[in-house]
Amino acid sequence: MNILLVGVGLIGGSFALSLKKDEQLKFGGYDIDAKNLEEAKKLGIITELFNDQEEAINWADTILLAIPVNAIKGWLKGNLSKLRKDQLVVDFGSTKGAICESVEDHPNRSQYLSAHPIAGTEHSGASAAFASLYEGMNLIICDEEKTDPTLSSAFEKLAVAAGFYLTKMDSKEHDRHLAYISHLSHITSYVLSNTVLNKEKDGEIILELAGSGFASTVRLAKSSPAMWSAIFTENKDMVLNGIQAYREELEKLESMISANSKDEISAYLEEGRKIRKILK
Amino acid sequence: MNILLVGVGLIGGSFALSLKKDEQLKFGGYDIDAKNLEEAKKLGIITELFNDQEEAINWADTILLAIPVNAIKGWLKGNLSKLRKDQLVVDFGSTKGAICESVEDHPNRSQYLSAHPIAGTEHSGASAAFASLYEGMNLIICDEEKTDPTLSSAFEKLAVAAGFYLTKMDSKEHDRHLAYISHLSHITSYVLSNTVLNKEKDGEIILELAGSGFASTVRLAKSSPAMWSAIFTENKDMVLNGIQAYREELEKLESMISANSKDEISAYLEEGRKIRKILK
Repeated sequence: MNILLVGVGLIGGSFALSLKKDEQLKFGGYDIDAKNLEEAKKLGIITELFNDQEEAINWADTILLAIPVNAIKGWLKGNLSKLRKDQLVVDFGSTKGAICESVEDHPNRSQYLSAHPIAGTEHSGASAAFASLYEGMNLIICDEEKTDPTLSSAFEKLAVAAGFYLTKMDSKEHDRHLAYISHLSHITSYVLSNTVLNKEKDGEIILELAGSGFASTVRLAKSSPAMWSAIFTENKDMVLNGIQAYREELEKLESMISANSKDEISAYLEEGRKIRKILK
Repeated sequence: MNILLVGVGLIGGSFALSLKKDEQLKFGGYDIDAKNLEEAKKLGIITELFNDQEEAINWADTILLAIPVNAIKGWLKGNLSKLRKDQLVVDFGSTKGAICESVEDHPNRSQYLSAHPIAGTEHSGASAAFASLYEGMNLIICDEEKTDPTLSSAFEKLAVAAGFYLTKMDSKEHDRHLAYISHLSHITSYVLSNTVLNKEKDGEIILELAGSGFASTVRLAKSSPAMWSAIFTENKDMVLNGIQAYREELEKLESMISANSKDEISAYLEEGRKIRKILK
């Protein structure tokens, strides 16, 4: 089986590396960043390198879109109608609602599968990819009933071989949850980083005073801006909801501190600490 | 040398464990939590267990206060005047300005040393203590010139033996920096946790959808509420400054998303991403 990675970065590259042991599979790559594409070939992530996307699509049995979410919609608009009947295209974007909506009435809708790997690191590009990224991680499959079952089940077998366990979810429900659980963490990290960098012009001071706590809280601010600016605008309404809810919580704590209400503050922190019961 | 830990949790306990190899040192403990104190003895953190604080103080050559910052001020008020001339009391609290100010004109000021270890975990209590916590970490000594140099240099030798490197700083400057670099990270984590827990009543969903990113960003919300509610109120003005600056940054990003300004969002995220140059 020929698998084409459109976007050979952390996400696409790790998928290929996790399946390298399967000799039935051949990985090809197409990437708008020619240097990254060559790097991917050098690293053994792909064996076929395509400079022409149409040629690449022709070569492929399965196409994995691992590009920013705004580019996924554009890709499907331009290419879904050109697929042969035996071809499947899967996207690994972090938002699902708007993408699914954009192909809802497409005659080839059944050749598209919507998926989101709950895995990643703050690094990006082919050199950041590694074989164990998806080991034991969750792949959320959205609106699965809209995909041809033969095509989807073939891909899901690959995904399980790559290390994933699978969960199924409605695409809009997915976006509602992810806005809070994932997108908001990225927002708060980027904002924290900007706040501290604006205040502390001397990096040396940050380095000396930052314990592992600051490093952990600000880690996601190292993530790819191209990827995350696309997610924030693609999932705009839910993300804005999340920000508003967060801002209201922040203002609550702010007034408690302002009023020196130690007991109230303690109670608020105790509530937040309940996350321990969920994330051990 | 007899070292008394007032508060035998993560911070005090780890100091004792890191110096266990030195047979000249004896560690005693006093803690308002009797169960925790017994646990500390069982774990070999202390060899002497005191139920009476006055007795404990009499026994000690050096006293380490590893208790919430509000309790530190109270301790000094009640006990600094009772010390023998050869005794030193050190505090390991995370805020320094208000504590230093509270003893500024005290006749025994020179027997007090103000210090802050830039180390910790989200866990607390004696059972969370471990010997390598301070290995290669920064101990900030504040307003060192106000402490008797014989007493301070003896303690600093111990601190270096425990694994610390030392930096010196003015106590008010310390609090200004820490409000942004440390306290604000804790605020944003607790607030993120509360926002998500309010929205997602089903812990199972959080567990399934939370990648390592959410876990990392929310980790500090597992920290001790007693410790952090005290820090937020002790360093109230600076913390409120930090929250305000953070809120303004959040509102900036919020309006960019609201206006769909992809380029502006990308530029904002690129700015935040510069933290990579400082925290590798």
